[in-house]
Amino acid sequence: MKIEVKKNILATNASAAAANRERLKTHGVCIVNMMASPGAGKTSVIVKAIESIRKRLNLAVIEGDIASEIDSLAIEAMDIPAIQINTGGGCHLTAAMISTALDHLDLEALDLIIIENVGNLVCPAEFDLGESARLIITSVAEGHDKPHKYPLVFRKADAILVNKIDLLPYCDFDLAQFRQVVLGINPDAAIIELSCKDGYGVDECCHWLEGRADTVHADLKSRTDTVHSNLKS
Amino acid sequence: MKIEVKKNILATNASAAAANRERLKTHGVCIVNMMASPGAGKTSVIVKAIESIRKRLNLAVIEGDIASEIDSLAIEAMDIPAIQINTGGGCHLTAAMISTALDHLDLEALDLIIIENVGNLVCPAEFDLGESARLIITSVAEGHDKPHKYPLVFRKADAILVNKIDLLPYCDFDLAQFRQVVLGINPDAAIIELSCKDGYGVDECCHWLEGRADTVHADLKSRTDTVHSNLKS
Repeated sequence: MKIEVKKNILATNASAAAANRERLKTHGVCIVNMMASPGAGKTSVIVKAIESIRKRLNLAVIEGDIASEIDSLAIEAMDIPAIQINTGGGCHLTAAMISTALDHLDLEALDLIIIENVGNLVCPAEFDLGESARLIITSVAEGHDKPHKYPLVFRKADAILVNKIDLLPYCDFDLAQFRQVVLGINPDAAIIELSCKDGYGVDECCHWLEGRADTVHADLKSRTDTVHSNLKS
Repeated sequence: MKIEVKKNILATNASAAAANRERLKTHGVCIVNMMASPGAGKTSVIVKAIESIRKRLNLAVIEGDIASEIDSLAIEAMDIPAIQINTGGGCHLTAAMISTALDHLDLEALDLIIIENVGNLVCPAEFDLGESARLIITSVAEGHDKPHKYPLVFRKADAILVNKIDLLPYCDFDLAQFRQVVLGINPDAAIIELSCKDGYGVDECCHWLEGRADTVHADLKSRTDTVHSNLKS
């Protein structure tokens, strides 16, 4: 007898993810699943993005951590709704956790939700959360060989931020080689160089986020227009 | 009905770990389980340690990765036995994997085996491999708040290497705060500052590794002496 635990867990998660995706679509809310190693700079990127985008879009953040509320407190200090999920040892967020978090947000008032997943390049990659897009952050200090070692997370990324680019002079990180490997496994990924310290690349990152939110808005408008035109005809 | 999957997995792992531990003890081999985030510098630390310790101790390395053989090829290039374990998506090594790897090593000829676990601060912390000691590496670029966010791995550490200390002038890493948090959750942990780039702290790290190997040797000698004295009496 073979017990297919992992298969069942992923199937249950997939249906919860599909429900999240449909729910967010009907409200025209874009949701970005941000994944990275511990300490790659996820929270710093979110803080920079909030500062830049908040005038144009209504934002919220879902913070996934094994323990602590450090990150959600930092976001709440900026007067942005933040939901903290503590997984209590769990190494990734699941679609069911996101569903519960969405219950605590006013979706009608939001344009963009950023999910900061648990710091881990492995397990989060397997769990669809119902996101509109996947954003991976890697730091120059981690080295350029990460796409070789953690291929799934890089293959499924819509965009990859190469963060802490200000450390480039002090690290053995070969940008050309990194780009080559990433584009070999994921030719459609946007690769954006970034420094939260000096602000380099923050505009490009925010432009990408706004573009994803615009696409979700446009989808909702097109769905609504179709319903209206069907009603008229 | 409640299916206790995790509990069963950990119980199976614990008995395999106990078997590994006993097997290594009878050969007087010290085995160190090295854990860290992706890109914290595990392989670089191992390479530095090999260069320094190989004259005094016989070494082998077990490399755990989701994919790729980059790391074991680097070790083999130094004429040190290296066993590559590719987990194929698995986020941590298990005691059963280590048992299989040990079958391929000449334990009688070895003093110290270093296990490079999968780059992940979460799941590996829960899986005892039968190790003599746990060594955690964290990089200055990851920030000093990691012990708050990944408490289990830091609580169970015997030593913590603060790697890439050469990046300290360029990162917001507060060493005093890091030490305070670590010692709050794990007062017995050795904390060693290190730079694989300029060699700072490599001696202290190697001294710690040699100390662990000496302890295992001394244990075996004391067990053998007891057997001999029992035979005589």
